[in-house]
Amino acid sequence: MNEQDKLKKAVGEKAATMVKDGMKVGLGSGSTVYWMIRSLGERIQKDGLKIEGIPSSNQTAIWAEEAGIPLTDFSHVKELDITIDGADEVDANNHLIKGGGAALFREKVIAQAAKEFVIIVDQSKIVDTLGEFSLPVEVLPFSWHRTANEISKLGCVPTLRVNEEEPLVTDNGNYILDCPFKVIPFPDKLNKEIKSIVGVIETGLFIDMVTTVIVGEKDNINIK
Amino acid sequence: MNEQDKLKKAVGEKAATMVKDGMKVGLGSGSTVYWMIRSLGERIQKDGLKIEGIPSSNQTAIWAEEAGIPLTDFSHVKELDITIDGADEVDANNHLIKGGGAALFREKVIAQAAKEFVIIVDQSKIVDTLGEFSLPVEVLPFSWHRTANEISKLGCVPTLRVNEEEPLVTDNGNYILDCPFKVIPFPDKLNKEIKSIVGVIETGLFIDMVTTVIVGEKDNINIK
Repeated sequence: MNEQDKLKKAVGEKAATMVKDGMKVGLGSGSTVYWMIRSLGERIQKDGLKIEGIPSSNQTAIWAEEAGIPLTDFSHVKELDITIDGADEVDANNHLIKGGGAALFREKVIAQAAKEFVIIVDQSKIVDTLGEFSLPVEVLPFSWHRTANEISKLGCVPTLRVNEEEPLVTDNGNYILDCPFKVIPFPDKLNKEIKSIVGVIETGLFIDMVTTVIVGEKDNINIK
Repeated sequence: MNEQDKLKKAVGEKAATMVKDGMKVGLGSGSTVYWMIRSLGERIQKDGLKIEGIPSSNQTAIWAEEAGIPLTDFSHVKELDITIDGADEVDANNHLIKGGGAALFREKVIAQAAKEFVIIVDQSKIVDTLGEFSLPVEVLPFSWHRTANEISKLGCVPTLRVNEEEPLVTDNGNYILDCPFKVIPFPDKLNKEIKSIVGVIETGLFIDMVTTVIVGEKDNINIK
């Protein structure tokens, strides 16, 4: 296991300790969340921890089932106690860019539905200002050319995310535009501008949603 | 043919005369548009009219193919010359409620893409203030319960549109919430509020988009 994976495992396991008996848990996506799910699975097996989860992606649903976490959905649950997820960038105000794994829409839903929204990252994701990571935006396939053109007026040249030369299709049946803004000085404003464009389903900007960030640093776990 | 159908046929045929040789045409949806498509088909057969269309629904695509209208899409066409569509309500400022036929998203795309956006309705659709017709909102299935709950905070109780006891699925694979606001005094504000909710794909409010409304009245066609 390399250094970065060790940090991911450490913060994933740390976050799992925040989950208490009886909680409804939003399960994020990605490699750091994988370790959190594994740790929850161990507590279910060993300690009889009783929880229910709502997964943010098909991949997470598979991991959760392997770990023995019972799954539910929003027809049965109105609110979540805690959601734990990774991020592609975390800025000084704890605003986020997410969506590198193409699950941003469901991730935003489970984040918004939760009383506590905990982000787990290694230190490479901490930035002063968002934007170095290209902002993912989920769009409807029918009009993606037009939507990309509208987004380009806001100051970047979006590219359609592909997978083996075909457009990557999200779990919701849509496409992802990756938008290299480089610097996003006003993320709240940009988020509203992009969301208002016809054809946009959701952006990867998560503004004022986070309650805790757990950062894996060399020889240390930093909570902010 | 009843009186209302006669009016629909009359305005559909009137709108078809606005389509000129070489135009790229956005084709709306619904029973009034059906007559417009039929009339365009006749001009293609008889007069050799050369046009290309982008359909706003699978049903419209079928009608257009039957009428002999060549179809294209937004990977080939950036802008449309004219889009012709129906509406569920038209207010005094020519703002619209659309989406009774569940095609509101693609209808909004072809409306926004067109230099001219022509609405064809019979007089029963003309209102002073929007809202008597329940506002359709397209939402992602994953979180529709939560999205409905968020919309309800704006002053109505949304219902999920169903078809034979199953949720109706749009051409984009999503659901429709019908939102009975009764009166919508500030449609632009409401449109922005709803669109900003996580899980909302698009609303049926069309604000400041219309260039011409053709109204079928008894013994008269009124253009405003």
